[in-house]
Amino acid sequence: MQLQQEDLNRFEKLIGKENVASDKAHLIAYCYDATRQRYEPEAVLFPRNEEDVQNILRYCNEKGIAVTTRGAGSGFTGGSLPASGGIVLAMQRHMNQILEIDMQNMVARVQPGVLNMELQKAVEEVGLFYPPDPASQEYSTIGGNVSENAGGMRAAKYGITKDYVMALRAVLPNGEVIRAGKKTIKDVAGFNVAGILTASEGSLAVMTEITLKLIAKPKMKKTAMGIFPTVTEAMDAVYKTMAGGVTPVAMEFLDKLTIQAVEQKFAKGLPKDAGAILITDVDGNSEQELDAQLDIIKASFDANGCGEFKIAADENEAADLWFARRNASPSLAVYGNKKLNEDITVPRSKLPQLLTKIYEIAGKYDVNVPCFGHTGDGNVHTNVMVKDGNDPQQLERGHKAIEEIFQATVDLEGTLSGEHGIGLAKAEFMPMAFSEAELELFRRIKHAFDPKGILNPGKMGI
Amino acid sequence: MQLQQEDLNRFEKLIGKENVASDKAHLIAYCYDATRQRYEPEAVLFPRNEEDVQNILRYCNEKGIAVTTRGAGSGFTGGSLPASGGIVLAMQRHMNQILEIDMQNMVARVQPGVLNMELQKAVEEVGLFYPPDPASQEYSTIGGNVSENAGGMRAAKYGITKDYVMALRAVLPNGEVIRAGKKTIKDVAGFNVAGILTASEGSLAVMTEITLKLIAKPKMKKTAMGIFPTVTEAMDAVYKTMAGGVTPVAMEFLDKLTIQAVEQKFAKGLPKDAGAILITDVDGNSEQELDAQLDIIKASFDANGCGEFKIAADENEAADLWFARRNASPSLAVYGNKKLNEDITVPRSKLPQLLTKIYEIAGKYDVNVPCFGHTGDGNVHTNVMVKDGNDPQQLERGHKAIEEIFQATVDLEGTLSGEHGIGLAKAEFMPMAFSEAELELFRRIKHAFDPKGILNPGKMGI
Repeated sequence: MQLQQEDLNRFEKLIGKENVASDKAHLIAYCYDATRQRYEPEAVLFPRNEEDVQNILRYCNEKGIAVTTRGAGSGFTGGSLPASGGIVLAMQRHMNQILEIDMQNMVARVQPGVLNMELQKAVEEVGLFYPPDPASQEYSTIGGNVSENAGGMRAAKYGITKDYVMALRAVLPNGEVIRAGKKTIKDVAGFNVAGILTASEGSLAVMTEITLKLIAKPKMKKTAMGIFPTVTEAMDAVYKTMAGGVTPVAMEFLDKLTIQAVEQKFAKGLPKDAGAILITDVDGNSEQELDAQLDIIKASFDANGCGEFKIAADENEAADLWFARRNASPSLAVYGNKKLNEDITVPRSKLPQLLTKIYEIAGKYDVNVPCFGHTGDGNVHTNVMVKDGNDPQQLERGHKAIEEIFQATVDLEGTLSGEHGIGLAKAEFMPMAFSEAELELFRRIKHAFDPKGILNPGKMGI
Repeated sequence: MQLQQEDLNRFEKLIGKENVASDKAHLIAYCYDATRQRYEPEAVLFPRNEEDVQNILRYCNEKGIAVTTRGAGSGFTGGSLPASGGIVLAMQRHMNQILEIDMQNMVARVQPGVLNMELQKAVEEVGLFYPPDPASQEYSTIGGNVSENAGGMRAAKYGITKDYVMALRAVLPNGEVIRAGKKTIKDVAGFNVAGILTASEGSLAVMTEITLKLIAKPKMKKTAMGIFPTVTEAMDAVYKTMAGGVTPVAMEFLDKLTIQAVEQKFAKGLPKDAGAILITDVDGNSEQELDAQLDIIKASFDANGCGEFKIAADENEAADLWFARRNASPSLAVYGNKKLNEDITVPRSKLPQLLTKIYEIAGKYDVNVPCFGHTGDGNVHTNVMVKDGNDPQQLERGHKAIEEIFQATVDLEGTLSGEHGIGLAKAEFMPMAFSEAELELFRRIKHAFDPKGILNPGKMGI
């Protein structure tokens, strides 16, 4: 439906004139995310508190107005885009407080608009640690992280956002507040509602408060790098290292095309003929503990063709080793002006097969597909580079390559998305990964929470 | 509805005569669990495989026959009791295989009827580790563990069953198979169905295959014990130790009444005037790592009134230190012939308040309430001992005490059940812990999976 003046008047009455915007500047400011797609909302609302969220939802539910909740708008799949119009519920302006850092129980209680990095800094100041570190950590919000179940580099050792969500408060479309979960590790009373709200991409309820598990901060960290002649050997080294008893904090890789792109752009002296580089961090509470891990990693790398192994002597050297990985994404422009990037994930042991298949597909469609990412958890950022994105034929070849890469991923027991979500961007591929019975169950779950379908309609392919 | 001969005939046709039982001996054998309540099913079915489960459910769904899935029947809250008649689906006879231990990806794929201990042994043989260790580990099944989200002693450090469930196959009441989750740490495609099936007490679907995360087995372990003058000081020591940066594998306590009961029964020379004993295990990969943890624990215990601290020199001494804890439960019979035991859980820092309140309630109702359990995660086994369970007045006082203990738990942000579930036993207390909006949401979720309500009807208070 089209928003009417009376709706805007009602919103102003509910949450204050200064917290309702429908001018063009605001509609444009809240129409995009990292997909670069644009969908203008009809109004942007800035709730001040949970009660505002209740009042807004109750009204929108009565009137059938679509509601898209938005954190920082940094998502890669359109989860926060108001694809069906209606209102954007922008959580970052007011609902951005760290409510409590409970050191005794090692949990933090935050509002959804808190930045990931802000939380990380606050808890590290008191000796605690919040591990999930999506690449967007400087500017993405905890609400967005929970909605998309954000991952990051530290996932192999410390898990992902869902592993840290202990409890939530949320508002259902009918305006009712629900509490889910507890500040306790153990809780078996009622269904695991916090579990299903996590990763639900704003389609089931609007979170108003999030309680996150914290852990003790490891005292020290070391970085190492290995250079491999082939990507297959590097991928073998990854899963064999972890099966060997070491779980590094990070185990990141760059393939040959990515190395060459970084070198072309930054000339840091990277080995341009290498098949792959692995960069790894280990952490712990003593030198001895770190060295024991690095010994196992080196042995495993050596046994899998690693030609050169380097341990950073200090933080500067560590930053040097990380430089190529941190600058991988922006370097890829050397291959074209249009990047179709995906975050497919397979079981670690399937990485060698996946990479082989990806390069085969790249050859078939005559596109470059540089890959890098979080191999420790099987999460590969595949970047189908279209030389000239304005050429429909080239673009078409790129999209066909993506589709085949998705199919290869599913065939290897993998997932369409490791950490970005489905949103709009991958909605069309859901039938590739899920049966009709599974999709129907998703629709029934959606209906249980949101019978009128006002929350983030059109997302997740359901 | 009453099961008819034609239903039995159909079941026999579907899964074979030898896998359908309706004789009195079978109905009695499958009518109980650890609650000692009895509900006879009308038939017991032993599915051989997923297809059998599909065929049985499809038929029962059409005919409206209640289906209660059962593992080993070791639950404490009646989750596997056929409270509404119908059939028991017994998973342990045929669907009891470890299908795969995937060392490369560090996961195990099992059928629901596998015993917890059997899985633990199989993975430890290849150097891997499955941490969840409910007290029932020798005889409870993984399917039951997942359904009730079983905890155990190692939860403080390693988490609970839900932290290890990566993927499930399950059959919906309509006979459709769904797959949920993946062998990958990261997966954000579709709703977290594996998350909500875990802890759903068999009321949403019937699991047919479970994929569990494994971790590298820590190389060594040490045990220590501290004796405290008061239970409050011991509880303070627990949360202060953990906030101090050590996460022990286990941090178990016995209160004064429990110590005295064990001593009365076994005369092991325990300090009968002590207010509480804490027993703790630390693990790691080097002596140095273990000693560093024990140093912090000792310092924290000392600072909180610990009068005697002892580190076990070897496995025999460790077994000695653990003796009292392992024999706590059976020793309590010295206080009465009827035990009302609950597994309430509060945030760790609230333990001192909780224990104080419990003893107050015990005094008020003139019952003994010895407590012991997993303080590292705030999970206290409270045992309201009724001297003569055949005296209705004494029993009534016991039940009133339980009710007040539940209320105190909820008031301290705790949960009615840390690891046993709600089932039948705690169903009546659900409105104490959940709002009507929350209970209504549970009912809608139940309806989304099981619209005719055939799966484990009457459980969880919904």
